[in-house]
Amino acid sequence: MNPYKAGPFLSKITIPQDLRENFTIQDLPQVSQELRQYIVDVISEIGNSHFGASLGVVELTVALHYVFNTPDDQLVWDVGHQAYGHKILTGRREQFHTNRTKGGISGFPKRSESEYDTFGVGHSSTSISAALGMAVASNFKGEKERQHIAVIGDGAMTAGLAFEGMNHAGFEKDANLLVILNDNCMSIDPNVGALNQYLTDITTSHTYNKVKDEVWKLLGKISKFGPDAQTVVSKVSNALKSSLMKESNLFEALNFRYFGPVDGHDAIGLAKILEDLKDIPGPKLLHVITKKGAGYKYSEEGNPTQWHAPGVFNKETGEIVKIVPKAPQPPKYQEVFGHSIVELAEKNKQIMGVTPAMPSGCSLNIMMAAMPDRAFDVGIAEQHAVTFSAGLATQGMVPYCNIYSSFMQRAFDQVLHDVALQNLNVVFCLDRGGLVGADGATHHGAYDLAYMRCIPNMIVSAPMNEEELRNLMYTAQLPDQGPFTIRYPRGNGVMTEWKTPFKEIKIGQGRKLTNGDDLALVTVGHPGNFAQEAIAKLKEDGYSVAHYDMRFVKPLDEVMLHEVFSKFDKVITVEDGCVMGGFGSAVLEFMADNGYSSQVTRLGIPDQYIHHGTQKELWADCGFDAAAIETTVRKLLKSSKSLKAEEKAG
Amino acid sequence: MNPYKAGPFLSKITIPQDLRENFTIQDLPQVSQELRQYIVDVISEIGNSHFGASLGVVELTVALHYVFNTPDDQLVWDVGHQAYGHKILTGRREQFHTNRTKGGISGFPKRSESEYDTFGVGHSSTSISAALGMAVASNFKGEKERQHIAVIGDGAMTAGLAFEGMNHAGFEKDANLLVILNDNCMSIDPNVGALNQYLTDITTSHTYNKVKDEVWKLLGKISKFGPDAQTVVSKVSNALKSSLMKESNLFEALNFRYFGPVDGHDAIGLAKILEDLKDIPGPKLLHVITKKGAGYKYSEEGNPTQWHAPGVFNKETGEIVKIVPKAPQPPKYQEVFGHSIVELAEKNKQIMGVTPAMPSGCSLNIMMAAMPDRAFDVGIAEQHAVTFSAGLATQGMVPYCNIYSSFMQRAFDQVLHDVALQNLNVVFCLDRGGLVGADGATHHGAYDLAYMRCIPNMIVSAPMNEEELRNLMYTAQLPDQGPFTIRYPRGNGVMTEWKTPFKEIKIGQGRKLTNGDDLALVTVGHPGNFAQEAIAKLKEDGYSVAHYDMRFVKPLDEVMLHEVFSKFDKVITVEDGCVMGGFGSAVLEFMADNGYSSQVTRLGIPDQYIHHGTQKELWADCGFDAAAIETTVRKLLKSSKSLKAEEKAG
Repeated sequence: MNPYKAGPFLSKITIPQDLRENFTIQDLPQVSQELRQYIVDVISEIGNSHFGASLGVVELTVALHYVFNTPDDQLVWDVGHQAYGHKILTGRREQFHTNRTKGGISGFPKRSESEYDTFGVGHSSTSISAALGMAVASNFKGEKERQHIAVIGDGAMTAGLAFEGMNHAGFEKDANLLVILNDNCMSIDPNVGALNQYLTDITTSHTYNKVKDEVWKLLGKISKFGPDAQTVVSKVSNALKSSLMKESNLFEALNFRYFGPVDGHDAIGLAKILEDLKDIPGPKLLHVITKKGAGYKYSEEGNPTQWHAPGVFNKETGEIVKIVPKAPQPPKYQEVFGHSIVELAEKNKQIMGVTPAMPSGCSLNIMMAAMPDRAFDVGIAEQHAVTFSAGLATQGMVPYCNIYSSFMQRAFDQVLHDVALQNLNVVFCLDRGGLVGADGATHHGAYDLAYMRCIPNMIVSAPMNEEELRNLMYTAQLPDQGPFTIRYPRGNGVMTEWKTPFKEIKIGQGRKLTNGDDLALVTVGHPGNFAQEAIAKLKEDGYSVAHYDMRFVKPLDEVMLHEVFSKFDKVITVEDGCVMGGFGSAVLEFMADNGYSSQVTRLGIPDQYIHHGTQKELWADCGFDAAAIETTVRKLLKSSKSLKAEEKAG
Repeated sequence: MNPYKAGPFLSKITIPQDLRENFTIQDLPQVSQELRQYIVDVISEIGNSHFGASLGVVELTVALHYVFNTPDDQLVWDVGHQAYGHKILTGRREQFHTNRTKGGISGFPKRSESEYDTFGVGHSSTSISAALGMAVASNFKGEKERQHIAVIGDGAMTAGLAFEGMNHAGFEKDANLLVILNDNCMSIDPNVGALNQYLTDITTSHTYNKVKDEVWKLLGKISKFGPDAQTVVSKVSNALKSSLMKESNLFEALNFRYFGPVDGHDAIGLAKILEDLKDIPGPKLLHVITKKGAGYKYSEEGNPTQWHAPGVFNKETGEIVKIVPKAPQPPKYQEVFGHSIVELAEKNKQIMGVTPAMPSGCSLNIMMAAMPDRAFDVGIAEQHAVTFSAGLATQGMVPYCNIYSSFMQRAFDQVLHDVALQNLNVVFCLDRGGLVGADGATHHGAYDLAYMRCIPNMIVSAPMNEEELRNLMYTAQLPDQGPFTIRYPRGNGVMTEWKTPFKEIKIGQGRKLTNGDDLALVTVGHPGNFAQEAIAKLKEDGYSVAHYDMRFVKPLDEVMLHEVFSKFDKVITVEDGCVMGGFGSAVLEFMADNGYSSQVTRLGIPDQYIHHGTQKELWADCGFDAAAIETTVRKLLKSSKSLKAEEKAG
């Protein structure tokens, strides 16, 4: 049951056809207003959602579905956390309150969810390439009237993939492609980079104004023509304007016809220009200026980073509900990273920090504030972040390049080809490693242990808690470490007293945490805590289970594994990562290479895409939380007990 | 011993300091001429090398080392196959004839080879990011005079990584960075894309000319000013020129100061402008026009794709030596791909072909000629190639996206996030899978089986011969196959009669090729042929070795593996891929998951970067050619025989 009520106009719209058939262009502001109100009503209460981005494109969303014949016309949202309005208008209003919860709708467009979601998104900057593919296919099939629209933010535009798509699209002159540049001057954090500055420039018509100024200045000097000269040049300059603006435009340089900038909160104006653009063939770009969080007083006037995903808030007062815990809570892993890198950098002048557009998400903003000349936000540009770090490392710097695990997939070649092949001392801090929860399939950091460990020279580690994270960060900057991956999860750690003194960890050295006789749990990373929990319960029932926290996926602690395989005929590996090729496989390789033959059970993320839910739900679903470990141990030991009993009986 | 003689000037240059100290700017043309001659002399005889690219930058190379204080000033060559002149001028003239041979110098800049090679390269478009990292580090260290130069081709400029680097660099206003755009209008094949067209436009001063024309046209109409009006506007238009050119420039839009275009074959002119640019702070771009193969009659006038890497040729006549085999030879795998996709596409109208700038390298040029509306060269843009293919697939097309294995590393996220997550039927044809030979560490396709098999929904296959390649290509386009990887090696196949009729292969079904009792060889891909060879020899000595060609790394043929592990206590897996996480590990996972405990030996590429040599040398070095397989089998069976003998004796 959906407890939320839509306004009178919005409640008449189940699918976009209703919008197109029941309303005139004059109604669009009212539809927009009701759509915005609905988003505020729902998100303020359910929390756990993005917010500002969707508010910023309410008018654009309404205008797009009003003008274009969706879903036949193909609308691709870049990143997709701005597509809530789109979801509400395309058959999902009644499900919207289930957003990002297990079994509910996804926080991102998803092909399996709706025919209006033409392309599944989550990672940024894919929309131009995808929409171009659709446009080329339509062309080939002779569907010349079909429209293909990519809506992309100015932040996403800085990623290389977007540029590659533009470069190809400009060459496909028959492709019916409209790129809408949703320019709100920020992604999650304020945007950086030359492109951003450029967009500001053209928004203020800088180019044209500057040229005009120079003409007037010059004419002032040519006195013999007097005022008439100003007249002629005024005309010249107006005539120049169009060709000048055209040629001077970055997008025109890439063969796109450029239109704009236009006001993204004028629904009627947007609908009119979109209607006009329908008739213009070939690749074109409409530059739309919007404001994140627009139309809701508190998000419009407040800190946009805070209103990116505010959680539950009081919609009347704009007060964001903060749950104040009774006892001190463990910090987020990202905060441990953010504070520890500053501590380390204070002592080691070679340390630098690099993030691709996630300074607040990964807490590098702490270092950026404390040491602005040593911490770099390079924009949404994972590939560049890594190769830039490689360049720093060639000069003796020790860059800590912090990238969310699932985004690091974008820079796999740069890690392999630019860093590891040259054995450079770049520290890859992979935040959001493992299952991330509500963001779902696109954002789980499920594959990093598998794709990082096949890279020669690479050290791959995963701390079990905050102290271990700090010690690994400390170890990574000691001389001549080479490429060093430290992978840790989203969310909170497990220690309230986490500011422990730094200690070196020997590379490839694990820790035996619990002695035992019946079975060995061999874990890496935070699930070690689940193992500890399970062991405590199992102990109550007399099970004697050993626990080894390996710390390193590569190199493995071979001394420790010899102990494990010499002593135990039953071994369970546990990781918050894909079992296909991951940590457990590395343990199997050790076993095979050394002639052991214990029974190894691998727990981790199964070989399928995992959808959204809370982290706890997903850890349980995937079968590696404390309860699942406990069950697995009991099952394995029960079967061996009954076997032994049979042997005795037999 | 180096049998090649340098000219009188060149022989005086061991390192760039010699060039700077012993010669004047007027001598640079002669130095250039001798350098070019030396390259022609050596490469025409040794073959096995790139050629046209290095000839095109001879003057630029000489001018750079003359003007800049290398190696203290940091020179980064993009891609690097144009750096032969650089190698000859930086201490490696006497080793140059060992280029790309085992134990000889690398065909690419390599940090471990020379301090003048500031950054190891091979894959394109890394130079701007790397040089920016160096520049930022120098700045931080207070080395303000230090220069950082990235030399990048116009083809490499289309890759997203280059754009990401430019976008960040334009923002680092204090970075002492010079990007030299080496514009020769082609990479290996002629360049495509909007950027390329744009560069042609500015080279012919299109922008400025067009604006000027319009001013004159307009003034013709304003008759009352008569000829005087033309005078005033001529002045206005000249004054506008600088600001107009500046503002209208794509690179200026990204905050780079743009200079050029200049003649890249005028060594003196280049030296002068490079000298001037030294004093200009911040990020700047020099646009240099060169010609691939310049200065050597036959390559300058001939087909640049042919002269990219011509092999041995007669330097006097320009005749490229073609070794005509006595008997018909098996085709290259790439040719089998190139012809087979056309055959398939003739029957299935949904098939399309996509290549990122490798049409002749992967033989998609055959389809591009036959079906120009269905085959796309998208430029150096692997990420886009994959997401564009995903877009095509959403519309029911079946794109065959052909990317060299090591370049596919660039598009890992797009495969995972845009294709596999949506279960789209994109066929990834990974050419150059496994060890590629002379191109060395940057180009080996060593990791694909490992990084592809951890992706959910992905089918991963590797054919053992041409017929299998054709059948896998046929199978991949049958309805509803989802993401489908077919990975095959560089070089020739094994069948002279390869145009076999297409046959469907059941997904995940292997082939038992040889029965045996003592041991099982379980192979995937072309090393199956090595296994066959080894088995023939072993048979002579009475060994009975079974051979299973698995065809699929994912899904594995479980029926077949149950047979293998039920029957054999010794199993050898063989793959031309990394043993860390690769096919052999997949077999271990099956073994562990199903409670078997045979002794498994994994042959393949060890966990280290493999340098250059011939494919045969490297297969042997890595221990998985026919001889190595034979040796491994003998060793394993000998130990078991002696064990059995001991048992008997005991």
